[in-house]
Amino acid sequence: MADSAPVLKGIIPPMITPLSGRDQLDHESTERVINHIIGGGVHGLFVLGSTGEAPSLPLAVQKEMIDLAEKVIAGRVPFLVGVTDTCYSRSLELARYSADHGVDAVVLAPPYYTPFHQDDLTRYFVEFAAECPLPVVLYNIPSHCKVAISLDSARQLMDVPNIIGFKDSSADMMYYGNLIKMTGGRDGFPLFMGPEQLLAESVLIGGNGGVCGGANLVPSLYVEMYDAAVAGDVRQVHLLQQRILRIADKLYGVGDPPSGYLKGVKCAMSHVGLCTDHMADPLHRLPDEKRDQIKRNLEELELPIEVAS
Amino acid sequence: MADSAPVLKGIIPPMITPLSGRDQLDHESTERVINHIIGGGVHGLFVLGSTGEAPSLPLAVQKEMIDLAEKVIAGRVPFLVGVTDTCYSRSLELARYSADHGVDAVVLAPPYYTPFHQDDLTRYFVEFAAECPLPVVLYNIPSHCKVAISLDSARQLMDVPNIIGFKDSSADMMYYGNLIKMTGGRDGFPLFMGPEQLLAESVLIGGNGGVCGGANLVPSLYVEMYDAAVAGDVRQVHLLQQRILRIADKLYGVGDPPSGYLKGVKCAMSHVGLCTDHMADPLHRLPDEKRDQIKRNLEELELPIEVAS
Amino acid sequence: MADSAPVLKGIIPPMITPLSGRDQLDHESTERVINHIIGGGVHGLFVLGSTGEAPSLPLAVQKEMIDLAEKVIAGRVPFLVGVTDTCYSRSLELARYSADHGVDAVVLAPPYYTPFHQDDLTRYFVEFAAECPLPVVLYNIPSHCKVAISLDSARQLMDVPNIIGFKDSSADMMYYGNLIKMTGGRDGFPLFMGPEQLLAESVLIGGNGGVCGGANLVPSLYVEMYDAAVAGDVRQVHLLQQRILRIADKLYGVGDPPSGYLKGVKCAMSHVGLCTDHMADPLHRLPDEKRDQIKRNLEELELPIEVAS
Amino acid sequence: MADSAPVLKGIIPPMITPLSGRDQLDHESTERVINHIIGGGVHGLFVLGSTGEAPSLPLAVQKEMIDLAEKVIAGRVPFLVGVTDTCYSRSLELARYSADHGVDAVVLAPPYYTPFHQDDLTRYFVEFAAECPLPVVLYNIPSHCKVAISLDSARQLMDVPNIIGFKDSSADMMYYGNLIKMTGGRDGFPLFMGPEQLLAESVLIGGNGGVCGGANLVPSLYVEMYDAAVAGDVRQVHLLQQRILRIADKLYGVGDPPSGYLKGVKCAMSHVGLCTDHMADPLHRLPDEKRDQIKRNLEELELPIEVAS
Repeated sequence: MADSAPVLKGIIPPMITPLSGRDQLDHESTERVINHIIGGGVHGLFVLGSTGEAPSLPLAVQKEMIDLAEKVIAGRVPFLVGVTDTCYSRSLELARYSADHGVDAVVLAPPYYTPFHQDDLTRYFVEFAAECPLPVVLYNIPSHCKVAISLDSARQLMDVPNIIGFKDSSADMMYYGNLIKMTGGRDGFPLFMGPEQLLAESVLIGGNGGVCGGANLVPSLYVEMYDAAVAGDVRQVHLLQQRILRIADKLYGVGDPPSGYLKGVKCAMSHVGLCTDHMADPLHRLPDEKRDQIKRNLEELELPIEVAS
Repeated sequence: MADSAPVLKGIIPPMITPLSGRDQLDHESTERVINHIIGGGVHGLFVLGSTGEAPSLPLAVQKEMIDLAEKVIAGRVPFLVGVTDTCYSRSLELARYSADHGVDAVVLAPPYYTPFHQDDLTRYFVEFAAECPLPVVLYNIPSHCKVAISLDSARQLMDVPNIIGFKDSSADMMYYGNLIKMTGGRDGFPLFMGPEQLLAESVLIGGNGGVCGGANLVPSLYVEMYDAAVAGDVRQVHLLQQRILRIADKLYGVGDPPSGYLKGVKCAMSHVGLCTDHMADPLHRLPDEKRDQIKRNLEELELPIEVAS
Repeated sequence: MADSAPVLKGIIPPMITPLSGRDQLDHESTERVINHIIGGGVHGLFVLGSTGEAPSLPLAVQKEMIDLAEKVIAGRVPFLVGVTDTCYSRSLELARYSADHGVDAVVLAPPYYTPFHQDDLTRYFVEFAAECPLPVVLYNIPSHCKVAISLDSARQLMDVPNIIGFKDSSADMMYYGNLIKMTGGRDGFPLFMGPEQLLAESVLIGGNGGVCGGANLVPSLYVEMYDAAVAGDVRQVHLLQQRILRIADKLYGVGDPPSGYLKGVKCAMSHVGLCTDHMADPLHRLPDEKRDQIKRNLEELELPIEVAS
Repeated sequence: MADSAPVLKGIIPPMITPLSGRDQLDHESTERVINHIIGGGVHGLFVLGSTGEAPSLPLAVQKEMIDLAEKVIAGRVPFLVGVTDTCYSRSLELARYSADHGVDAVVLAPPYYTPFHQDDLTRYFVEFAAECPLPVVLYNIPSHCKVAISLDSARQLMDVPNIIGFKDSSADMMYYGNLIKMTGGRDGFPLFMGPEQLLAESVLIGGNGGVCGGANLVPSLYVEMYDAAVAGDVRQVHLLQQRILRIADKLYGVGDPPSGYLKGVKCAMSHVGLCTDHMADPLHRLPDEKRDQIKRNLEELELPIEVAS
């Protein structure tokens, strides 16, 4: 990466955090997963996001993850780190640590405990961007943070120095369409889609990429979809979309309550030997019945997964 | 229309109901608006929906509207009528009246007062479809009905005889994408998008058309968008999308609280001489300040509107 | 009732509507239920509310119910009729009919289809109150109407001539406490609590009564609770509260999805011979398994129900 | 405090955290506020809760607060510490630190980032209670944690060793009433109300106390209310309730957007010389206009506040 801010676009998977126990990072699996993802042709890697269970991990483990990822990524793709926290100075500490460890940009969602107003929100992002030694990608995920970044706030924040992009996990395409209208779909301020089910349409209407969790398991599929959508190959998009939605059905929607995206991905990854499905508290691995169902579904899906031994 | 169910697709605008006073249908304006919309090249016309303020109108006015629309449409395009009501027998009466007045299909959302469960919901639709003399298009609009048609219910209902299509106004593209996955995007069970801001992407990923309220004002724009999306002309889609989103901004989002889609459309229509902006109770026309702003915004938008005198 | 507005307070049950089939009012059961409720010592009777499934009934059946209730009540207690509708003129027609049939006051919630703003809401109530030949009790039930009556709107509306009281089914005690603060708990503008589970505390902090659905089944229990709360007899309140909450558990919360209040009450009433459990569309009677469980629970509850043959 | 679990009841204010800058605990003000609150006759003190802005503070500042509070409280009242965190081991570390510093019980809400299911929730609480060296008071605050403790989960958790009480900030009196029904209102498992506006009714129907934020400013008022409600003195309750609701109006509801409870309390405290109104990120002190309005409102309220110099 050059000294200037990276030009981000394409598929930047939010990496799961392989664990072998409470606060125990599984180094071997982490290396394997990173290589697996990069091997799928992705355009970047994002660690310590929601999918990485970052808020559940102590700062020490977060730093350990950054260290290890730096070494394994080794500059092959842009390296992004989530620094979202309810404590401003903990976010800043992690951003500074990232700056010293080869990270290209940090990803920052609103603090997620106390509900607060847009005035406080914009001020928070402006102040953090000014203090942060790395470029900042904003992250909107109201399902987790409660506070959404309003369109008005987004418009203001797009012009703030050191804020270089936006990831939206609201699953609200009216909102996303308006973000695209604001940026004109230009590459200068890239817009990323959170939910992989919306990757296709978000790119077709002018979005710049996706932070697809399923790319932990089968990265090449999402890269293919991104390429098809950028090329405007609608027929190919339709075919791939069926496969992406089936993954959501078969791996994230198993049982009642549904297995969920986070547990589903990690469970499927454990079945193909990428890592164990140990979850950080307060989550726990799926019960055996759902695990077994996911195994059967995984076989049925016939996904092109090759795991290096 | 032949005896068999019509093949629906494309732009089927939800027509506003021109009123000259409480419970007073404005016949002259109604005729003008219908001709204006059909003149824009649309693929059908839908009266007495949410945009038509149907739940606010007495049954007598609803029938008067059907009578008039039948004469003015005169078979030029498929004719759809909303029969949603909290009272089953009132819905059925309206459906029977429709069958006698040249209507091609009825549109039916869930009863919208008491919250209830999916079991009651599917049973309701199955029973109504069996008793209804016309084909039924299901209508999902949880913002108004509270009860959403779940994906499981939708899957069941797609196979029910006499249920021939689905309009979704949930604005939830995850949901819509799953509907497309269920139907395979086939024309045999067409899927229509409610919010016009999502028309482009819904058609790009395999949807069959849109029930665009803005088409009351400028029908040709939405027809163009539909054509571009069907053709997979992504560049043209991007250009038109900017214009469609600007309409929403400039006409529906004026002031605080925002003017809203329903009042905004009718207000803009009044400015170009299509009808007055009288609203049915409990709504009221916008205050002068917002009306004037919408007038200015309308000029700024430079929409291709030609109103026949 | 005198010519002047009635002084309302105490327990005014929202009567269920006994039906023998679609749009078929069961006259014999209606008479039995009215006498049963009045026999329990209640302070009024409210027909054609949410509990009365009014929005599901055609206008003709609503009028039939008013006719019959007028005869059976025969002036023994204040007689209230719900006239809530999405169609203004239908509400007004029903209010006028009520005025000619011995009704003391009408109950009016916001129109419940299109979401709208407080400005339209207050204007709606002000206009209706001016045209309505009977005093109006406002009804706040956002779970059904979506639009809530804001505290600011409530404050304005309390001073409108012909608006004489307020029923709140928001289940939000912060809101209710603020209503009491506004009225000073004075009898001049009575405040009624919807959910029976909150009757006790609402009266203890200064409310004026309750519209308790469980009073269809066991009216004397709620009258006792009202009396205990008015007397400030906290010990007695605690005892009765346990019984009221057990009714909710045992009759409304059976199974998954739970039986629900409306079906639960009607089912229990059918078991004691008050009426059948036929529901108006889109609702349907509970499945046998839940019906049987409610029967067993009802025996376990040992409620003091005497049904006149 | 004896070795055994403390018997908690009455008013246990959630103390604000006096700050002089980012991560700077204001020791002098902290001492003054603690003495002020205890001087008002409260039954306990709860630091590092939501009101204490705990999630915004680094662990070091949290420990500093515990140290200081231990010294100032000096065993005069039960001492509770909030240990809620998204990171299990950070919660546990804080609980262990608390055990070494005179704390009587910890307060624990669900981890507040990732949404999760009740199975994970109950398992989380069970495991934490087993590892925690201090008794645990559960804390339900869905507005902040998104995940609510369901009634079923509450029922299970009440029987878990080392879980000794429950604070509910759901503001849902149906829920709270059911908690009381479960415990029988017995002192053995005390139930505390979060929002001070609901203190009166919660105690009248059998609750055991309140965690009233306004008690930072005027502790004696809430103690009086608690006493009146315990005594069943309904007339006195009504009088005090008007005052408590006026505080909420005049201090928490100033301007648009409203000042809010947290900023309102700290602002009012700054006006009477208890501490500054510095807020932890992402919050910021109110703008001058609202500050001034709160000053005027505070004078109007004529609260019995005596601040020791």
